[in-house]
Amino acid sequence: MKPQPTDPRPHILVLGAGFAGLEFCLAMRGRDDLRITLVDRQNHHLFQPLLYQVASAGLAAPEIAHPVRSVFSDQENVSVLMDEVRAIDLKERRVTLADRVVSYDYLVIGLGVKTGYFGHAEWENHAIGLKNLHDATEIRRRILLAFERAEMCEDPEEKRRLMTVAIVGGGPTGVELAGAFAELVRHVLRRDFRSIDTNEAHVVLVEAAPRLLTMYDEDLSEYTRQKLESMGVQVLTGAPVQNVREKAVELPDRTIDAENIIWAAGIEAVPLTRTLGVETDPAGRLIVETDLSLPGHPEVFAVGDIAHCIDQAGVRVPGLCPAAIQMGKHAAKVIRDDLKKRHRRKADAYPVRPQFRYFDKGSMATIGRSAAVATSAGMKFQGFLAWLMWLFIHLLFLVGFRNKVAVLLQWFYAYVRYRRGARIITGVRGDS
Amino acid sequence: MKPQPTDPRPHILVLGAGFAGLEFCLAMRGRDDLRITLVDRQNHHLFQPLLYQVASAGLAAPEIAHPVRSVFSDQENVSVLMDEVRAIDLKERRVTLADRVVSYDYLVIGLGVKTGYFGHAEWENHAIGLKNLHDATEIRRRILLAFERAEMCEDPEEKRRLMTVAIVGGGPTGVELAGAFAELVRHVLRRDFRSIDTNEAHVVLVEAAPRLLTMYDEDLSEYTRQKLESMGVQVLTGAPVQNVREKAVELPDRTIDAENIIWAAGIEAVPLTRTLGVETDPAGRLIVETDLSLPGHPEVFAVGDIAHCIDQAGVRVPGLCPAAIQMGKHAAKVIRDDLKKRHRRKADAYPVRPQFRYFDKGSMATIGRSAAVATSAGMKFQGFLAWLMWLFIHLLFLVGFRNKVAVLLQWFYAYVRYRRGARIITGVRGDS
Repeated sequence: MKPQPTDPRPHILVLGAGFAGLEFCLAMRGRDDLRITLVDRQNHHLFQPLLYQVASAGLAAPEIAHPVRSVFSDQENVSVLMDEVRAIDLKERRVTLADRVVSYDYLVIGLGVKTGYFGHAEWENHAIGLKNLHDATEIRRRILLAFERAEMCEDPEEKRRLMTVAIVGGGPTGVELAGAFAELVRHVLRRDFRSIDTNEAHVVLVEAAPRLLTMYDEDLSEYTRQKLESMGVQVLTGAPVQNVREKAVELPDRTIDAENIIWAAGIEAVPLTRTLGVETDPAGRLIVETDLSLPGHPEVFAVGDIAHCIDQAGVRVPGLCPAAIQMGKHAAKVIRDDLKKRHRRKADAYPVRPQFRYFDKGSMATIGRSAAVATSAGMKFQGFLAWLMWLFIHLLFLVGFRNKVAVLLQWFYAYVRYRRGARIITGVRGDS
Repeated sequence: MKPQPTDPRPHILVLGAGFAGLEFCLAMRGRDDLRITLVDRQNHHLFQPLLYQVASAGLAAPEIAHPVRSVFSDQENVSVLMDEVRAIDLKERRVTLADRVVSYDYLVIGLGVKTGYFGHAEWENHAIGLKNLHDATEIRRRILLAFERAEMCEDPEEKRRLMTVAIVGGGPTGVELAGAFAELVRHVLRRDFRSIDTNEAHVVLVEAAPRLLTMYDEDLSEYTRQKLESMGVQVLTGAPVQNVREKAVELPDRTIDAENIIWAAGIEAVPLTRTLGVETDPAGRLIVETDLSLPGHPEVFAVGDIAHCIDQAGVRVPGLCPAAIQMGKHAAKVIRDDLKKRHRRKADAYPVRPQFRYFDKGSMATIGRSAAVATSAGMKFQGFLAWLMWLFIHLLFLVGFRNKVAVLLQWFYAYVRYRRGARIITGVRGDS
C-alpha cells in the first residue's frame, strides 16, 4: 500500500517518530480517508526517559528502542520511511529528504531537540551529550574503558582523572546520570577491580543555578542534593561553566579534571528550524499558535520538544514526554476536525480550531534505585514512594504502544537485574 | 592485589577470555600459591554459540556477553587485564601487550580463531564474517538497512538484490544463520513492510561439499536441507565459491547477486601463531602434544580453537565449546600436577603429565525455533526433540559461570520473546 502521487486522500507528512509524532499517527488509527507518511532517520522509536540507563550500563540499547514499523504494522494508513530531512519548503508545501522530495497537505514537525552548548560549539568535542542511542553507548564505552585504564595506571594523578566523571547540568538528566554512575561505581564495579579503589571514583555534578532541579520546590532540590551526596556524588551548585577543554571543566573557583565530561545542560532545536522563515525562540524552537500550528501556516504543526508553546491557559508547555504525547494527540484532533468541517468551508480557509491545553500529570526524576522526587497534582513526593511512582507511573504512562505490557515487563525485568547490567565495552566503533 | 614483580608465586599468563581461558582460570580457584593474569582485548567473555542470534536480531549484544572481571570478582588469584597481545617471546618467556610487557612461568594461549577466506583476503571486503559482537551488530545493521532500502526501491532487479542474503558455508554457523534469517524475514519483518513482499526475500545457503553439516550422518544433513527449504531457504550444495566480489558470489554455474554476503566457510588462527617458531597446521593453529603443551615448551599450552590437538585416543579434537572447556580444565590440571611434584624434581625438568582425552558430549545445530539436529553418545536426534535438547543442554552445559541460572533465565527469556527481537538499526558506526 505504497502512497501513490495520484492518491486523492489528504496526505499528512509527519517528521520524527518521537513521542509526539508517534502519538499523532496512533491517534489517526482507522482513518482510511487520509494517508500519513512518517519519516525518521532511525528505524526505531527511542524511549528517551531511560536513555541514561543505557549510558550507565543498566540496560542494553535494544531494550529502550522499538522498531517504528512494527508499531504501525496493522495501521494501514501509515507508511514509514527511514530517511533524513534536508529542507522544508513551507511555500511549496514539500519536504526534501535525503532520497526524495515529498509533498504534503498537512505537515507535522516533531523533530525534537539536540544537545546545545550555549553557543560554544567547540565544547562539543570535549563534553558528550546524551540524546540518542549512539551517545548512550559511547558514554558507556568511554566510562568503562576509563576504569580499565585506571586499573593499570601507575600515576596517582592520572588515575584520579581517569576515575572522575563530570556531569554538567543539574536538571533531571544530570541528576539521573549522577545517581546511576554513583551506583555503577560503588555497587557494581567495586568488586570487579583489584588495583583501584572505586571509593576514589569521583562523580561531580555541576549546576550554574543555586540549586538542583530548579523546576521543583526547594525542599525537593535539597533532598536530591543530600541523597546524591550520601551516594558519594560531589554536587556543585551556583557553579557556571566558564570553559570546557580536553578532559577539564573550568568553573569560576576551580577546574575539574575528568576523563569523561557529560553535557546535560542545554538543548537546542535542529538548525533547520531557522531556515523556515517563521519565528523561533532563542533555542531555535518553533513558536506555535495555541492550536499548535505555525503562525500563517495553519497546515503546519510543530509538536513535542521542537515547539515553543504557550497553551490556552497561558502555561509554557515543558519539554517532557507527557507534553509531547498530548501535543501529538491535539494536532491529530485539529486535523480530524478540519477534515470533518471541510465540506462547509472554502478552499484554503480553515475552521476555528480547538486550543491546546497542557494537562500537567506531574513530573519526576529518579536519583537512585530506591529514591526519586516527584510532583503531581500539587503534591510533592520524595524517597522510596516517589521511586515506586517513577517505576510504575513513569513507565506505564509513557509507553503508548500496543505491546505496553510486554515492553513494561521487559524494562522492569531489565531494571531488577540491574546489578548484572550491560556493562560490556564494545569496539572502538561503539557497537553493541 | 596487584601482581608485584617480586611476588614469589609462579605466574601464569592466560591469553584470551574465551571458553578455554575462562575455564582454565576457574579451575585454579582457591590456589593462592599461584597468580594468574588473564588478558583479553575485550572486557567481556562472549557466548559465541548464540552470536548468530545477535546477527539475526533475536538478541541484544549485552545478552550474550559477560564482563570478565565480574566472573573473577571473588577469585583473588586472577587479575584481569584489558589489553591486546602484540608478540610472544617463547625463549625469554614474556609477552608484549599494547601497553606493557609481561613475563610468565606458564603461558596458556587461548586466543581462538578468526574468519578465514582460504587465502583470498580481498573477499573480506565483500563478505562479512561472524566472530565477534561487532561483526554481529554490523550484520544486523546491514540486513535491516537493506530491507529499508528495498521498501523504497523502484527497480525490481535492485529490489531483489537488496532482499537477498547469501551465506557461504553449510556448517553449523551457516545453517543457524540461514534458519534465523528465514524466520526473521518471514515471520518478523513480513508485517512491518508495505511496499515489499517479504516472500520475495531470498536467503541462499552455499556449501562446497555435496551436503550440509558434513560432520553429521547423511540423514541429518538431508533433514536439515529439507527443513531449511521448507522455511524458504535456497540450499546450494556441491557449489564451491569461485569468486566473491562487490555484492555478488560467483559459483561454477551461476552468480548470486546479494546485498549482503556472510562468510561462515572458514576459520584461521591469528597470524601471531606463525611467528612463534613452532609447528602450525595449514590454518595456523598451534600443534600441541597430548598434554596440550607446545612441543619443546612444556611451560606453554595452547587451548581451545587455536590448538590443533590429537588426543590420547587419537581423536582430532573439534573446534567446539565443550572441547575448549575440557582443554582449559586439562591444562589447569597439568599445571597443578606439575606444581605438586615440584619439590621432587630438578629445576627445568617437568614430570610425566596427564594426557588429554576429549569426551564427546555430542554436538548440535539449531535450524529454527523448533527444529535442530543433534548427535550424542552415538545417538542421533532431529526435529523438536533435538531443538529442546539444544535449548537446555546447549545453554546449560556451556555456561560455566557462577551465575549460570541467572544467565540461562535471561537467555531463555530473550529467546521466547524472539518475535519482538532486537531489530533496531543503529548509527553508521554500528552502535547499539
